Amino acid sequence: MMTVLDAPAIWLRDNCSCAECKHPDNGQKLFNIGDLADGIRVDETHEQDGEVHVRFAPDGHASVFDSAWLRRWLPEASEAPTDPRAEDAKQIWDVSDLGPLPEASWESYQRDPAVKAAALEAVVRTGFVVLRGVETTPRRVLDVAATFGFVRTTNYGDLFDVRIEPNPINLAFTGLPITPHTDNPYRDPVPTLQILHCLSNAAPGGDSGFVDGFKAAEVLRTESPDAFDILSGTEVTFRFVSEDTELSATRSMIDVDPYGRVREVRFNNRSLQPVRLRPEDTERFYVAYRAFAEVINRPEHQVVFRMQPGDCVIFDNIRLLHARTGFEGEAGERHLQGCYADLDGLESTLAVLRRAR
Amino acid sequence: MMTVLDAPAIWLRDNCSCAECKHPDNGQKLFNIGDLADGIRVDETHEQDGEVHVRFAPDGHASVFDSAWLRRWLPEASEAPTDPRAEDAKQIWDVSDLGPLPEASWESYQRDPAVKAAALEAVVRTGFVVLRGVETTPRRVLDVAATFGFVRTTNYGDLFDVRIEPNPINLAFTGLPITPHTDNPYRDPVPTLQILHCLSNAAPGGDSGFVDGFKAAEVLRTESPDAFDILSGTEVTFRFVSEDTELSATRSMIDVDPYGRVREVRFNNRSLQPVRLRPEDTERFYVAYRAFAEVINRPEHQVVFRMQPGDCVIFDNIRLLHARTGFEGEAGERHLQGCYADLDGLESTLAVLRRAR
Repeated sequence: MMTVLDAPAIWLRDNCSCAECKHPDNGQKLFNIGDLADGIRVDETHEQDGEVHVRFAPDGHASVFDSAWLRRWLPEASEAPTDPRAEDAKQIWDVSDLGPLPEASWESYQRDPAVKAAALEAVVRTGFVVLRGVETTPRRVLDVAATFGFVRTTNYGDLFDVRIEPNPINLAFTGLPITPHTDNPYRDPVPTLQILHCLSNAAPGGDSGFVDGFKAAEVLRTESPDAFDILSGTEVTFRFVSEDTELSATRSMIDVDPYGRVREVRFNNRSLQPVRLRPEDTERFYVAYRAFAEVINRPEHQVVFRMQPGDCVIFDNIRLLHARTGFEGEAGERHLQGCYADLDGLESTLAVLRRAR
Repeated sequence: MMTVLDAPAIWLRDNCSCAECKHPDNGQKLFNIGDLADGIRVDETHEQDGEVHVRFAPDGHASVFDSAWLRRWLPEASEAPTDPRAEDAKQIWDVSDLGPLPEASWESYQRDPAVKAAALEAVVRTGFVVLRGVETTPRRVLDVAATFGFVRTTNYGDLFDVRIEPNPINLAFTGLPITPHTDNPYRDPVPTLQILHCLSNAAPGGDSGFVDGFKAAEVLRTESPDAFDILSGTEVTFRFVSEDTELSATRSMIDVDPYGRVREVRFNNRSLQPVRLRPEDTERFYVAYRAFAEVINRPEHQVVFRMQPGDCVIFDNIRLLHARTGFEGEAGERHLQGCYADLDGLESTLAVLRRAR
């Protein structure tokens, strides 16, 4: 256990919470890091009644730290700070260890904050949740999004309809099978959440699938470390063009943080543009890209389920890949409505729910 | 100049645009990378009437490439692909080379697509534009955002008022000076654009300032490469808490792409949480952080201007830092309205405008 004396003086001084240093109402810092004197050091310290009193030199500033706060926040022993978005904070899964689909009834989700918290927690930890029994009313998906965050409006509108269309601007709007992919990698920032609400699903086929992209990346890193390094170290361009829209984003398929932890996955063969790398890099890139695709498409990685009318899935679009089998539109209607939202709003709602418990 | 024969066969095969490989209407790819045979090679090729015909082995697939398309897309000689978001695609500036503020009259922006394109181009290249003469009607800022993209709704609502408030949840809502910072680094994804519309500015003080964060990062990299490496290689946590909201994001202050190019900057001393690094890393981090702050706060980096009623600035919130001097609310009203939006929508609008020219 570290003690206050092990903490660097500049760290302690920067975290002073007196009314001069932090706004008493909103907790925002009132000085700039450059305002502190050079060579800050601890001049004197003593503990009293669960508080640590520190006097600094050369500025003579006096700070009082709550001991419990210090225990929580003192510099830690690991190199990489905790990040709830990074792979090591997630419950990575394949079909064998996923267990039953994380789900909740919409009725109890709305009524019981504990059910709601567990559902949102599933999105954060497992990557998705299925809400059951959401009224099959058009545009209801927007109400679901409003329970935890804010809709991200895009060129598709506030919501989009997934059904067979006569002149589809996207293969999603056909009956063709769609292999595992993340949505909108041509957008930057990419929408971090997608919500899909099933209004009808009477067509033969059209089953849904999810793959944990973080699991696939983990398997790739184990089996083909070179392929992992190439995909995390190479940027490619994704693009979407329609009459009124021209979106393009240049990012890596596997996004790692400075500590090498997987943080985001982008995978969408439909919108990937011709890669523009040196010829030798192109060859290596394709070997890696094919290896990742092979891992993603292994049956043990894809959980397959059938959305029933009233089902609504909320899923992490920078981690999970989603898929659907092909379907015959003429034999019955299949109609989903979807919208995008962002993880930060969901995480905030979850944190506030946890406060109350 | 590369020729088609220099391009890797797998690259050519993957970019076939026949109706079997790409949806004729929407251009989306119809096969998966794993569907291609192993060991793809070019079996035969000939050029005719500005088109290159290629037959592949072992699949026997025949492709026809437009020569102009090939010249545009053939693998290139540089390691790093072009990315319009990365520092090398920007016009990096300090006060001495910024020149006059990029600006446009709101009237001509709405009437003349060339004026609008130039204004949006300034946001992409320089990081901001000032629109002059926007009606000082409440909520008009949302109409400005709608001309190029989609508002990002947050816990602050679709828009927020910047003026003195009795119980401010954020220092922005006081008369205190605010040093250069990016907004909402506690959000992930962070809003990439901010729009601020001045309704009144009669208070003494309250001048506005911008710093090009990419320039500051460039200077830091030149003067203190270690500091640059530490800030781009260390994640810190930003946080915002209010009664109904609890947002937290763990990211680096300088975000570089896999090629080391600066792509995003986050800088906000008010919401930075206690860093939780090993004690020795903490000391090094603070040296780097203070060095970056010192560079950012140099007068030669900050352009200062006064917003007049009717001025509306659109700026890149993952590149520019904004600031304001303190003001005396009792001597006159200062009232801005702001909202967030995203660069991808703006870039799309600009790309579509360019098509028409």
